[in-house]
Amino acid sequence: MGEPVDVCTLAERLIECPSVTPASGLVFDCLEAMLVPQGFAVTRFTAGTPPDGPVENLFAVRRGPPGSRHFAFAGHVDVVPPGDGWSSAPFAPVRRASPGGDMLYGRGAVDMKGSIAAMIAAVATVPADAGTISFIITGDEEGPARFGTIALIERMAADGERPDLCLVGEPTSVARLGDMAKIGRRGSVNIWLTVEGTQGHVAYPHQADNPLPRMIALLAELDSLELDQGTDWFQPSNLEITDISVGNPATNVIPAKVEARISIRFNDLHSGADLAQRVSEIADRHGAIARPVISGEPFLTPPGAFSSLLADAIIAETSLSPELSTTGGTSDARFLRALCPVIEFGLVNATMHKRDEAVAVEDLEVLQRIYGRVVRAALVD
Amino acid sequence: MGEPVDVCTLAERLIECPSVTPASGLVFDCLEAMLVPQGFAVTRFTAGTPPDGPVENLFAVRRGPPGSRHFAFAGHVDVVPPGDGWSSAPFAPVRRASPGGDMLYGRGAVDMKGSIAAMIAAVATVPADAGTISFIITGDEEGPARFGTIALIERMAADGERPDLCLVGEPTSVARLGDMAKIGRRGSVNIWLTVEGTQGHVAYPHQADNPLPRMIALLAELDSLELDQGTDWFQPSNLEITDISVGNPATNVIPAKVEARISIRFNDLHSGADLAQRVSEIADRHGAIARPVISGEPFLTPPGAFSSLLADAIIAETSLSPELSTTGGTSDARFLRALCPVIEFGLVNATMHKRDEAVAVEDLEVLQRIYGRVVRAALVD
Ligand SMILES: [Zn+2]
Ligand SMILES: [Zn+2]
Repeated sequence: MGEPVDVCTLAERLIECPSVTPASGLVFDCLEAMLVPQGFAVTRFTAGTPPDGPVENLFAVRRGPPGSRHFAFAGHVDVVPPGDGWSSAPFAPVRRASPGGDMLYGRGAVDMKGSIAAMIAAVATVPADAGTISFIITGDEEGPARFGTIALIERMAADGERPDLCLVGEPTSVARLGDMAKIGRRGSVNIWLTVEGTQGHVAYPHQADNPLPRMIALLAELDSLELDQGTDWFQPSNLEITDISVGNPATNVIPAKVEARISIRFNDLHSGADLAQRVSEIADRHGAIARPVISGEPFLTPPGAFSSLLADAIIAETSLSPELSTTGGTSDARFLRALCPVIEFGLVNATMHKRDEAVAVEDLEVLQRIYGRVVRAALVD
Repeated sequence: MGEPVDVCTLAERLIECPSVTPASGLVFDCLEAMLVPQGFAVTRFTAGTPPDGPVENLFAVRRGPPGSRHFAFAGHVDVVPPGDGWSSAPFAPVRRASPGGDMLYGRGAVDMKGSIAAMIAAVATVPADAGTISFIITGDEEGPARFGTIALIERMAADGERPDLCLVGEPTSVARLGDMAKIGRRGSVNIWLTVEGTQGHVAYPHQADNPLPRMIALLAELDSLELDQGTDWFQPSNLEITDISVGNPATNVIPAKVEARISIRFNDLHSGADLAQRVSEIADRHGAIARPVISGEPFLTPPGAFSSLLADAIIAETSLSPELSTTGGTSDARFLRALCPVIEFGLVNATMHKRDEAVAVEDLEVLQRIYGRVVRAALVD
């Protein structure tokens, strides 16, 4: 067991390092300086080439006795740009009193430097011989994410590192710390659609071939699709039409081409490839070309031992029984699922990505204790 | 009867005056210099203010005996921009031999300086006591046309000028001079459509309101409308969707607004206002706003005395019986119809608005003779 460390101080130190995506250098130096005293062996490396790289990543491991279980924390030290209108400088953390107790302000306070601080402070309370603990931390989660967690997983595979359980520190709580954890995420596929015709004059429609009626019929059919009714753990899959573009300023011209884009968020009854194929077949019937880009497959860590030990820890510290949800956007958990069962749990997300991002100091301390209970329970299981 | 004049020489002189829309000055000086020797009293005036004005216009009249009939020629001296790629300078008229006979090249050769030359040369063969003849000539037919023929008609009304018949010299012939005349034109209305919703993230569709499905349903309904089956003289009215615009580059964003535009070309079973009202009611059911702009009402000069005397003149000179058509875009005839029965007849339109616009010299001479027959027949009727 290392030196006891104050979670709020750790969070402040991390926030002080400006680390808009892609993060590198200083914020990783700071993180390394926190992990080494706790007995972690730290590996840092950059991956990727422009435009989506290079990206800095960090893997840290504190090895338990041979054959002991391996618990991983995962997350990111990059933050979204602060934007304007902050009450105090976004990278100058400041505590201010509020009716509910002290709040710590700063970009990344909840997403997710506060959470990383809680992980480190928690680990400091876990004996070194309890088992193996690792940190899987990227500098590009909020960006393209092509050379972040994916590269970490490849590196771990090459080095033979394989955790038994992984907890991602994304801010999953909604109204109160502990009210929600994520046991899965929907997949995501965007599909670009193009219909071509023959340009002409509106007064001579028989000499033209207007592509718009075909696109409209295609989009009407796609909009009417019922992909599924949802599952025990997932909402129904959902298709949204997100763009249509013709770009024809001339009122008397029948345009030659129309492009559109749809976005499907889908549950584990589908794969991205299956949906892309299905949309392509419908597009084909309407004379359209479909170009799909799958940005994530769905994953589910079915409720069981892992979710139970997390729920027990949350109940013990907050008296709240967390909702096990699969809602929301994608996260790096979609990659980490390849390693082992993954659950996401962290701070209240009300201010994430907003100005005056802030975390309750008490929440940091409670989260540290929850994480500590999770690690101890996971390592003895 | 004035001095005999060579139609091809007149056409060349008009083409030599560059007169891209809006035309003014030189080309009108040139036209005035041709009309005055033929006994015409010429009135020139400008109308309108920016952005669609000022526009120069010309009204010329050669009065016959009191109580005599009044025949009007109408047309324009403005031309569309020449564009690139001409074999010879567009405003330097040149005759070149071709297998079918000499051709005269230059911007406006067929649309419609050649036609105006034929009108003037024709009038030179008509005795001054045969009746009243006028020219209604604008410098803005190819442009916005807000202050061209409309202003001429207002001026004529103020001056008590009211022709009995009007022939517009637009190039209506298709394959051979004389194969088609226009006894009517469809009306035209463009309607801008807007559907507004609430922007949101595709992962949280219940917190957003995507306007695209409503627009798609609206456009699908509009596209399926059968406005009519056509009439004896008109094609079926036709609706084209000409633009859709969202402008949403973000794949994970549900957009707040979508705009679209339709264009309806309609026959005399409808008015622009009726169609605008009908589309507005459909739009309203889909939560859309419709903003119509009527650019022309349909008109028809039913086949009868006027079309018969024109057809007789064409048959006498070409042996062709002209098709009496109502196809194509709008023309200034949509305004002139307010004065008297209007028919359009002119040169072969194959090269109009294109590079290397050209007219057969023989066609100019034949058109002069046709116009001469028409005037003489119209004035004695
Ligand atoms: Zn995050
Ligand atoms: Zn014209």
